[in-house]
Amino acid sequence: MTTIALTLAYIGSEYHGFARQNGLVTIQGTLESALALVYKRDIATVGAGRTDSGVHAQGQVVSFELSQDELDMKPLDKLRNSLNALTPSNMMIRAIDEAPPGFSARFSAVEREYRYRLVASEVPPIFIAPYVWWLPNYRLDINKMREAAAYLVGEHDFKSFCVASSAVDKNTVREIKSIHIFGMDHLGEPCLVVQVIGKAFLHSMVRIIVGSLVDVGNNKQPPSWLGDVLAAKDRQQAGQTAPAQGLTLWRVRY
Amino acid sequence: MTTIALTLAYIGSEYHGFARQNGLVTIQGTLESALALVYKRDIATVGAGRTDSGVHAQGQVVSFELSQDELDMKPLDKLRNSLNALTPSNMMIRAIDEAPPGFSARFSAVEREYRYRLVASEVPPIFIAPYVWWLPNYRLDINKMREAAAYLVGEHDFKSFCVASSAVDKNTVREIKSIHIFGMDHLGEPCLVVQVIGKAFLHSMVRIIVGSLVDVGNNKQPPSWLGDVLAAKDRQQAGQTAPAQGLTLWRVRY
Repeated sequence: MTTIALTLAYIGSEYHGFARQNGLVTIQGTLESALALVYKRDIATVGAGRTDSGVHAQGQVVSFELSQDELDMKPLDKLRNSLNALTPSNMMIRAIDEAPPGFSARFSAVEREYRYRLVASEVPPIFIAPYVWWLPNYRLDINKMREAAAYLVGEHDFKSFCVASSAVDKNTVREIKSIHIFGMDHLGEPCLVVQVIGKAFLHSMVRIIVGSLVDVGNNKQPPSWLGDVLAAKDRQQAGQTAPAQGLTLWRVRY
Repeated sequence: MTTIALTLAYIGSEYHGFARQNGLVTIQGTLESALALVYKRDIATVGAGRTDSGVHAQGQVVSFELSQDELDMKPLDKLRNSLNALTPSNMMIRAIDEAPPGFSARFSAVEREYRYRLVASEVPPIFIAPYVWWLPNYRLDINKMREAAAYLVGEHDFKSFCVASSAVDKNTVREIKSIHIFGMDHLGEPCLVVQVIGKAFLHSMVRIIVGSLVDVGNNKQPPSWLGDVLAAKDRQQAGQTAPAQGLTLWRVRY
């Protein structure tokens, strides 16, 4: 068997999250259905990030195995076109390549990059509304947000930034390599982008970080508050979970 | 009466163009209906650019007249919020201001800026699909496109770049102040933006220019061909009319 790595983008608001679920339209389910149509068998896939319902992806990576016969049957660039034809237009496979032996989209990842888009404007950003968190009448102080974000960079116990009920994440220590906050224009709308890079993240971690950074940017809390929240190891101390639609799994590095 | 200038954005693909038409949903019709609800009378509006069906706007300008009583009844920032509440979410009023006496959104304009977005990629740009012309498997030579565009800058008879049947544009001499072509990333998709600035444009002029520039970028025609097309004063000599959805009326200067 040969391991295959597939890179894909999707509009998360039109799916019930990444992970396969019976009776619900999910990314993994849609992709596996298309693979089953091509290869006439069930093909199990592994995703780099199990994005929640509503979260988008620009560079999600998915791995799966094909036999030599299956590889010979259809070159990988042809497979890409077949899968793009078999999947809806809110999902798009960018590339399909052979991966090294033992490769796993999930476990081989050395770095995941998420981007969260905020729009602080009085009027709604009509062209990019499905891809941002619109904060009408907010004034976000970007320098205070940067100062607050610095408390989170490095290896820490991020229990305060993890969904309280999550049984999956027993070990809540993670390393954030960097958080950058910068302005970027998209289709004429001025966005504030929060770029978070780490090896792996807890459930809803990026969204809780962004929700907390917004409290600082909006002068509800001082920057040092984020250090206190981190030390508390208590989800109740952090800010709200920012809405899913502002978040995009941007890129995975191997 | 006081002249009012209103700046608005809209998703053109959801309207039958700017100009009021009986029985069709248009920008002007939608805006005038909302104004009639607020002021209990018909209010005639004038737009800076009569964008075609499918063409978007980021900074369309519309002027109309209000009496002193109407001005006193509702401050202009309140009017903006009322109109945004009364119009659908695919239209957004950015600002409403008093204009100098005699101001006309159409006739007082000294400069109009249009932007056209092209995406030359093998795979579809799913996040920005409604706002671009997707050219799968094209390789666009940006330097050749820039060389070709230079033939059009200045005052010329643009008869070749005007819808042949248009009876409106009897005088087909116009001045293009500049054409800039540059790459710009939108929601992670690499776009090529054709920015065209002039005082006024003929019907479909920007779209025919872009269609012709694509023929040059794609090596179907040499850059000097655009000079020949201009000299021919014949619509048949130019390239195709680029699709409406890639075009945005970006800004109007007074």
